[in-house]
Amino acid sequence: MAATSNLELSPPPAFFQSRIEMFDKYKAEYDDMVKAKPRQEISITLRDGNKKTGISWETTPMDIAKEISKSLPEKLVIAKVDGVLWDLERPLEKSVDLELLDFEHPEGKQVFWHSSAHVLGEAAEKHYGCHLCFGPPTEDGFFYDMATYDKKVHPVDYPNLETLSKAVIKEKQKFVRLELPKEALLEMFKYNKYKQHFIETKVPDGTTSTVYRCGPMIDLCVGPHVPHTGRIKAFMVTKHSSSYWLGDAANDSLQRIYGISFPDTKQLKEYKEFLEQAAKRDHRKIGKDQDLWFFDEISPGSCFFLPNGVRIYNALLELIRQEYRKRGYQEVISPNIYSSKLWETSGHWDHYKENMFIMEIDKRMSALKAMNWCATTGWEDLVLTFHSPGHCVMFDSRDRSYRELPLRMAEFGVIHRNEASGALSGLTRVRRFVQDDSHICMPEQIKGEMDELFKFLDKVYSLFGFEYKLELSTRPESYLGEKETWDAAERALTDVLNEHYPGRWSENPGDGAFYGPKIDIRIQDALKRWHQCATIQLDFQLPQRFNLKYRGEKVVEEGAEPLRPVMIHRAVLGSIERFTAVITEHFGGKWPFWLSPRQVLVIPVSKPFYDYANEVRDKLWDAGLYADVDTGPETMKKKILLGEQAQYNFIFVVGQDEMEARAVNVRNRDADTKARAEIMPLDDVVAKLVLLKAERRLENKI
Amino acid sequence: MAATSNLELSPPPAFFQSRIEMFDKYKAEYDDMVKAKPRQEISITLRDGNKKTGISWETTPMDIAKEISKSLPEKLVIAKVDGVLWDLERPLEKSVDLELLDFEHPEGKQVFWHSSAHVLGEAAEKHYGCHLCFGPPTEDGFFYDMATYDKKVHPVDYPNLETLSKAVIKEKQKFVRLELPKEALLEMFKYNKYKQHFIETKVPDGTTSTVYRCGPMIDLCVGPHVPHTGRIKAFMVTKHSSSYWLGDAANDSLQRIYGISFPDTKQLKEYKEFLEQAAKRDHRKIGKDQDLWFFDEISPGSCFFLPNGVRIYNALLELIRQEYRKRGYQEVISPNIYSSKLWETSGHWDHYKENMFIMEIDKRMSALKAMNWCATTGWEDLVLTFHSPGHCVMFDSRDRSYRELPLRMAEFGVIHRNEASGALSGLTRVRRFVQDDSHICMPEQIKGEMDELFKFLDKVYSLFGFEYKLELSTRPESYLGEKETWDAAERALTDVLNEHYPGRWSENPGDGAFYGPKIDIRIQDALKRWHQCATIQLDFQLPQRFNLKYRGEKVVEEGAEPLRPVMIHRAVLGSIERFTAVITEHFGGKWPFWLSPRQVLVIPVSKPFYDYANEVRDKLWDAGLYADVDTGPETMKKKILLGEQAQYNFIFVVGQDEMEARAVNVRNRDADTKARAEIMPLDDVVAKLVLLKAERRLENKI
Repeated sequence: MAATSNLELSPPPAFFQSRIEMFDKYKAEYDDMVKAKPRQEISITLRDGNKKTGISWETTPMDIAKEISKSLPEKLVIAKVDGVLWDLERPLEKSVDLELLDFEHPEGKQVFWHSSAHVLGEAAEKHYGCHLCFGPPTEDGFFYDMATYDKKVHPVDYPNLETLSKAVIKEKQKFVRLELPKEALLEMFKYNKYKQHFIETKVPDGTTSTVYRCGPMIDLCVGPHVPHTGRIKAFMVTKHSSSYWLGDAANDSLQRIYGISFPDTKQLKEYKEFLEQAAKRDHRKIGKDQDLWFFDEISPGSCFFLPNGVRIYNALLELIRQEYRKRGYQEVISPNIYSSKLWETSGHWDHYKENMFIMEIDKRMSALKAMNWCATTGWEDLVLTFHSPGHCVMFDSRDRSYRELPLRMAEFGVIHRNEASGALSGLTRVRRFVQDDSHICMPEQIKGEMDELFKFLDKVYSLFGFEYKLELSTRPESYLGEKETWDAAERALTDVLNEHYPGRWSENPGDGAFYGPKIDIRIQDALKRWHQCATIQLDFQLPQRFNLKYRGEKVVEEGAEPLRPVMIHRAVLGSIERFTAVITEHFGGKWPFWLSPRQVLVIPVSKPFYDYANEVRDKLWDAGLYADVDTGPETMKKKILLGEQAQYNFIFVVGQDEMEARAVNVRNRDADTKARAEIMPLDDVVAKLVLLKAERRLENKI
Repeated sequence: MAATSNLELSPPPAFFQSRIEMFDKYKAEYDDMVKAKPRQEISITLRDGNKKTGISWETTPMDIAKEISKSLPEKLVIAKVDGVLWDLERPLEKSVDLELLDFEHPEGKQVFWHSSAHVLGEAAEKHYGCHLCFGPPTEDGFFYDMATYDKKVHPVDYPNLETLSKAVIKEKQKFVRLELPKEALLEMFKYNKYKQHFIETKVPDGTTSTVYRCGPMIDLCVGPHVPHTGRIKAFMVTKHSSSYWLGDAANDSLQRIYGISFPDTKQLKEYKEFLEQAAKRDHRKIGKDQDLWFFDEISPGSCFFLPNGVRIYNALLELIRQEYRKRGYQEVISPNIYSSKLWETSGHWDHYKENMFIMEIDKRMSALKAMNWCATTGWEDLVLTFHSPGHCVMFDSRDRSYRELPLRMAEFGVIHRNEASGALSGLTRVRRFVQDDSHICMPEQIKGEMDELFKFLDKVYSLFGFEYKLELSTRPESYLGEKETWDAAERALTDVLNEHYPGRWSENPGDGAFYGPKIDIRIQDALKRWHQCATIQLDFQLPQRFNLKYRGEKVVEEGAEPLRPVMIHRAVLGSIERFTAVITEHFGGKWPFWLSPRQVLVIPVSKPFYDYANEVRDKLWDAGLYADVDTGPETMKKKILLGEQAQYNFIFVVGQDEMEARAVNVRNRDADTKARAEIMPLDDVVAKLVLLKAERRLENKI
């Protein structure tokens, strides 16, 4: 067992035994209590409408599963009883609706990974004698935060942790649920100040909460869990990092260990392949390999775009500018630094000050234009109000009439966000980024604007081959503005979503921002990962805070009051930086022609053809294409290989025949080897390439 | 005398009389001293080589002028004796070289305006009973700073100040020079703490300095001056503002009154016409009239560019990008915020910290990318090192070879400068601006790079019809690097200047930056004003501070050390913001077609032709032009008038004939009225306009 050669267990901590003794005592009491419950027949309604019968306080969801089919129980991860997740072996207490979930169900997956975190916790307690803090499932696996004190986690520990975890799994330790009063919980976890803190702050006095036991491991946990650890067939520790207790750098430093698990070893194999693919496509790696960009600690979270990176960046801006022109958008430029007065008006000063870069100028506080960001749910909830206060100032700089609406303001300004240094990650989580922007329109124009925006999304995302889905978040409990305005806006959004995306959108009731309903758009990349880039948000608040008004059509004749417009924040690409990262990984660095910083490499077969090669290159360059000539000392074969590795879309080889015919020998990066070389007249090739670029086609062929 | 109707003089301050008594006493002593000097014959050599004779301590430059011609004395403003400015009526003390300067000479103009400041000071003392501080000449006139205490200067005072000044002028008060010991100066100006401060700090103990008297006004002043106040034939108070004692907002608040004067009333008339022209062309006024941009106190010094302003801005960027592409420039994007470590390396932290926006991030000091600026001489001495430290980081991000040089990095990033709020002025003095940028090359490539840069300048400035001149500033006394490197670089610069601009450049010896020689380029606008926009600076320092190196051609074979490149900072447009202001005033808002935000207005003669008008507009728009249709309720005549006022380059009127012929009736903004209307086929017009734009021609005709 090579993997365990350096396995050194900590001596079993004293709290193991005391925890178990206490658990056993209360468990016996609980079992007695259950035994004493009156039994009666109950009815269990399945999702398909079928009904089963059982006995209260005896029949478990697992019993029902066994009735349904012999193979079903082993596939199941968790039950849902009257809409609430429920351990499969926990007795039902009354007549209920029952749903049975497997790993493929999103909630099943979360429970599976949550249980796996307990297994990791058990292994870590054994290995480090650590104090566990918080071990949740994530979007792709799970982690456990723990205080390891003088010991630091190191990759060399991973095999040990995996070995210990696999031993736990082999033992098929049952997950046993137990409800305990607050005082008993405080007593049970008295050795662990972190769990104590959770109990003190989350469990009200005089109430109970639950713990779950598997083997010697007992954890404060609301559950639920898989029936036993044996359900986890594949388990892997993936990485670790430092974290802070409660996410605050002023608190204790913790160690966070990440893992992944599956009910099937084949799935782990696929996952490893996915990781390998993802690593190959990592935008930081490709950025370095292709000389596109890099990061430096001299400016954490800000990217240095090298010339080839700027070519990609500018191709994206050019796309958006072209679409703006077609779609009646008006580009504006607003300042980057504003007096705090603006941020007080916009509300940022009260709510998001800590995410802004603050400076003192002329003895007044000022701040860099910033976006605000909802720390609880992360990037996905980004709120697009960065340029908007400046746009309100612009709108308000003179009287406005209904004839000017909708006013579709667009801006490519730089946004700064004071993102925690630990959260910075390549181009996906940065401190400096550029983002497209905001509309001001009449309330009755919302539907029309949405219609336009959806067409814009369709057009842009199709250019990248992205699938996408939409989610509408509606009025939350506390909201700003009139209920009628919200209702009308939500009706308009629902209608237009139904028209454009029948069956492709879902609703998230009550999850809108307090200032308006929103639509989140997620795109799926080539590795089937989902990314949020676009967002559309209605805003009833900013126009009110900035007291924006316009003269309605009827104002003059009928003496009506000026009207209040609605603001729409929208981003199609989202942050250009982040979108660049997404497409880098989506294309794996094999850029479609129109985005490619290296479109054509011209290779002369020998010195007499250098002039012709340069002529070909100049012709391509003058046509607006990126072309290079390789006149280095390497062999032609080597040059072709290097050109292919550098991801030139096309390689043109030129020699005697080509020069005489004013032609080039075209090798297409993506065609198979045999079909790759073809002699074509230069003028034809240039015209075709110009078209390929203008049409922004994904296929790499002419 | 209506202008003096509200003239209320302060009672003559007590210091008037005591000052005069003291002056007269010392003056009598001085005259006795002069009388006692031994007389001897002296020789006076004129600029043309002619020699005159005179007597020491008796003959004055004015005596010589009278000998030369009868009309000359009245034209003269000042003399220059052995290279030093010298009052015309001050006796020569020995044999000298003599130069006689009139108002047209730059130094003559400065003396004339300095004397005018004394006249203004005299008037202000009488009017406000104020304490004078500092009254220098400027580039276009003069000002006097004064402490008026509870009185504030108001435009209603201007006529009074002018009346008082004109009375001083009418009296032809002689400017009398007198040298006084420090103690006497302190006694004479004991009533004025500001003058006291100058005496204490500028006049060493045991030495003397000079005062000048005209009428009752006696001022601490090194002079020299015109012979008497009567030389000032035209005098005007132009404006006033607040200022601070020694320019520091922590000190006393002062009032600054500006004026202009001439030796000829005709010149004042011309100047007033110039002011009127300049006011009409003021970029802030045109920005407002044409809906291009505005400023708001919410972000002092940062411009809000409205959609039409962005069209102009983007047209400039597009021009530069196109030229970059042709000229082998590589666009990069570098961060806006850097850790102080970078600024310590670059030297900004020690020298220019106060001009940067500073923030604390991750408990370390950071600063916004900033340019540094030499406060002593103002904008003209701007030093182009804003993006450059970031570019050094990029250069240094991997090994570099001689094959990659010259590396012409270009960047359109935003620069912030913590400019004092009092200095902010429209687009010409801002806190936020965008600037083009830096080259890294081998020392032996300097000449070639200059050659390229000059071609670039020629190309760009000719597009605007700008005349320009160049000034080479060479090695200062204290400098960085090897003398040989400087000599070689200056030789290269001199050679290439002679090749490109024979007779159009001048030398400013010893005025280079300590890190390298520089070339300043000034352009002349339509009102004959000179503006500095472009600068080219060699930098031997940054490559050393950042330890930049490249592999030379001979490195591998001969084991040579890596080599140190040279950096060239250059800006062709300078700040895009400032350049936009300059061209707005240069063109007076009559934009050449390629820069125009309003290229074509289509006016249908009546409703049946709205569709055709829209079709024409769409065709123009699709061809990349800015076109609008006016379907408002006004009459056609009114619409044409409004279109002309809005400065549309062309107005297309369309009716039955035009629609049938698929044509438009073209009215050219700049042609005279008769020749204005011409029917042309639409397709031809579009093609011609596209060409007019692509060629960036200045004439507005197709």
